[in-house]
Amino acid sequence: MAVYFESTKTFKEMIRRRKVKICVVGVGTIGLPAAIFFASKGFRVVGFDVNERRVEEVNKATCVCEYPRMLEEVVRKGKLRATTDAEVIGEADVLIVCVPTPLDKERRMDMRYLLSAADEIGRNIKRGALVVLESSVSPGSTRKFGKAIEERSGLRMGVDFGLAYTPERYNPTLPQEIHGGVIYNKSCRAVESFTFNKVGRVVGGVDKKSAEMTKILYSAAIDAKIVEVSSLEASEATKLLENIFRDVNIALVNEISKVYSKLGLDTFEIIEAAKSKPFAFLAHYPGTGVGGECIPVDTWYLIKQAEEVGVEPELMKTARKVNDSMPKYVVELLERALRKVGKKLKGSRVCLLGLAYKRNINDSRQSPTFDVIRELQEKGVEVDVCDPIMENVTSNKVPLVPLEKAFDGKDAVVLVTDHDIFKKVKLKDVRKRMRSRVIIDGRNFFNEKELKRLGFIYAGVGKALEGERL
Amino acid sequence: MAVYFESTKTFKEMIRRRKVKICVVGVGTIGLPAAIFFASKGFRVVGFDVNERRVEEVNKATCVCEYPRMLEEVVRKGKLRATTDAEVIGEADVLIVCVPTPLDKERRMDMRYLLSAADEIGRNIKRGALVVLESSVSPGSTRKFGKAIEERSGLRMGVDFGLAYTPERYNPTLPQEIHGGVIYNKSCRAVESFTFNKVGRVVGGVDKKSAEMTKILYSAAIDAKIVEVSSLEASEATKLLENIFRDVNIALVNEISKVYSKLGLDTFEIIEAAKSKPFAFLAHYPGTGVGGECIPVDTWYLIKQAEEVGVEPELMKTARKVNDSMPKYVVELLERALRKVGKKLKGSRVCLLGLAYKRNINDSRQSPTFDVIRELQEKGVEVDVCDPIMENVTSNKVPLVPLEKAFDGKDAVVLVTDHDIFKKVKLKDVRKRMRSRVIIDGRNFFNEKELKRLGFIYAGVGKALEGERL
Repeated sequence: MAVYFESTKTFKEMIRRRKVKICVVGVGTIGLPAAIFFASKGFRVVGFDVNERRVEEVNKATCVCEYPRMLEEVVRKGKLRATTDAEVIGEADVLIVCVPTPLDKERRMDMRYLLSAADEIGRNIKRGALVVLESSVSPGSTRKFGKAIEERSGLRMGVDFGLAYTPERYNPTLPQEIHGGVIYNKSCRAVESFTFNKVGRVVGGVDKKSAEMTKILYSAAIDAKIVEVSSLEASEATKLLENIFRDVNIALVNEISKVYSKLGLDTFEIIEAAKSKPFAFLAHYPGTGVGGECIPVDTWYLIKQAEEVGVEPELMKTARKVNDSMPKYVVELLERALRKVGKKLKGSRVCLLGLAYKRNINDSRQSPTFDVIRELQEKGVEVDVCDPIMENVTSNKVPLVPLEKAFDGKDAVVLVTDHDIFKKVKLKDVRKRMRSRVIIDGRNFFNEKELKRLGFIYAGVGKALEGERL
Repeated sequence: MAVYFESTKTFKEMIRRRKVKICVVGVGTIGLPAAIFFASKGFRVVGFDVNERRVEEVNKATCVCEYPRMLEEVVRKGKLRATTDAEVIGEADVLIVCVPTPLDKERRMDMRYLLSAADEIGRNIKRGALVVLESSVSPGSTRKFGKAIEERSGLRMGVDFGLAYTPERYNPTLPQEIHGGVIYNKSCRAVESFTFNKVGRVVGGVDKKSAEMTKILYSAAIDAKIVEVSSLEASEATKLLENIFRDVNIALVNEISKVYSKLGLDTFEIIEAAKSKPFAFLAHYPGTGVGGECIPVDTWYLIKQAEEVGVEPELMKTARKVNDSMPKYVVELLERALRKVGKKLKGSRVCLLGLAYKRNINDSRQSPTFDVIRELQEKGVEVDVCDPIMENVTSNKVPLVPLEKAFDGKDAVVLVTDHDIFKKVKLKDVRKRMRSRVIIDGRNFFNEKELKRLGFIYAGVGKALEGERL
């Protein structure tokens, strides 16, 4: 069927009767949840991906993802399958595109995957299809993506095929599932609150019809409000605003926490208190840095674009600088603490807890842990990294030590990522196996008083610096 | 009575029976609401102020304030009176101090009023009194204030008198009242939501007892949560975090809006869309700048303090710089728009709408309007200012023109403050009385389409710049 040539009324009816074939292009972190939810709502969904291993995992329902039971069910029922065969693109009425958009070496948006997807789509797309992009992109990219499809297919967007942009609002988290002996998420609260179907969307189209059709389509899988904006670019700009908001606010508490620590104050106590204000405040927390392929990346997108149009993006650049300074700051805390046990950084043995960029997830892209490793190695520190949740990830860039051995023979342990699993550590026992007893807390994870009672030298991001007072 | 020497249990009982005499030191913007609410809850409250005129206005219940009917009632019932006689300080069991803490010329906190209050209190305070400070101050200031009282009185804080800090969380607004023919606030929503009694507090004390007593005291007038923190300084730091959060977030949207305008996008549409995200976003809006004695001032407090302890407060400084750049940006928008009607800034006649720093209030302290005036006058523009709500304020620093004449003979009108009263303007009529038809919208106030239909040249902060597109 050529859905784009139908009236929106007819399209609505087709959606109601699940007569629309969906192909999700790219079944990674963003694409898989979309595929699972549309499939679970009764659509026939095919996932196209160039990664053979991922395709196999989807078809066996063995991916580590937020919705393992749903995945298992939709695969079993034949509602979702994945393939590396691009011909499925040509069979689809709707294409949902979820490919990575990382930064290149100049910190510009890397269009490679997007253009490669456009090429595959251009080769195969049928006239009258609707193409929906979900990847985070800078304003103007969806139109470029559409142009690339036009060039390859000879079809025109807004005429021969529909094109819309509805940015993903994925909340990175993993469910309470045991994979290879590892419990991923004990509390599971985030998953319950902000599952794919409960988070509203913003939609902009190359034309009004594309936007309206996308709204109708997503309303079949999402129970929250879907907001239509005036253009592709307005929709792209919305996603950037949301993520840059987070980056800048984390930078703010990071900067303030450095000041407050010097004043002998606990920033976490202060944030908790500020939360009692019933208007005009939203809590963010200081930490070892900001990772992932969303928050820091989106800020860079707009920094580059601002510079191109002649606006100096001072605040955004400073925010990036402040957040990027945190790994170094953590190393300074470590150096200061080691001094108290008569050690220097050089020659010390340190274990970092957490390679993932966020608690309870198995994703280490842009993780600040890499920066801490680099800083420490440059200063002659022997570094181990422990992350039980990342142990089964095949693409790991650093060797990991098991949690049972993480503290053995170390002078210091630095918590970078606040995985729940680290709560299993019995500090009373492991202290005996350490060479010196230093703990640096990058995420307000440990109980400061307890650690001090056990004889640890303790320092933490956002915590009062010992010896500093107003 | 010497409340500080009583047990908290006894104090609670005294509060319950309203047996505690309260003196509010400084019955200005912050002190008067506190005085009114404690009085309305049945306490005997005396307001001490050095400003004779203010004292008279309070006693006649003629102040323009949020709670005119409540004020009238508590004055009539004899529950609240004001005086310039410092002897009332010595009669009070509890002193609530609400004096201004502006910036000095080096943008440091000006302790003058605070120290002068400490002097008056030190001369008169009775042993066993509880002193509570509400003014916004930088961490460490309450303790300095306490020390100044100690020095003058010979009493010791935490021993002979109690001392606590509970920062005001005043939401600047005026009620739907007519004063001198002016309607101050049409919607009145803010007042209804965030009246004095509905906004929780943070309390820190020089000792635990001071904090607990203050919590008990304020619980008698406030129905929201009162959070006790570990120290005076933690409480001071909380207030700064809350206000700096606002300053930085406004700076962010100001910066982003400059970029988005250049990309041909409407930032307000984008903020509305982002608000549909159910987590991790809070809307702030771009504008002509940030004024008032709270937000910009508090950021400067912490900038100075950070520099003193050797932390470079880059993000906060950049936020200040971005917000301070907005008046100039508005003038650039004006220059660009005037060019379209063949005019230059020099020699043009411009009227600014709004002298107050915020909508529907009669306070012009640190208002960005002053910066716009300066910029324009430097460039040889003939500037008028219109602000019906400020007309009755005696301390006005600039002459005002009435709204009926604001547009007459002007080349352009620039809206700086979005007072509801400006909605009265009939654009269709006033355009005939203008020399050229340019409107610059600093607060997303006007309807862009309507203005253009009426033949105006329009530009606005956060609006797509004409001729700019992605």
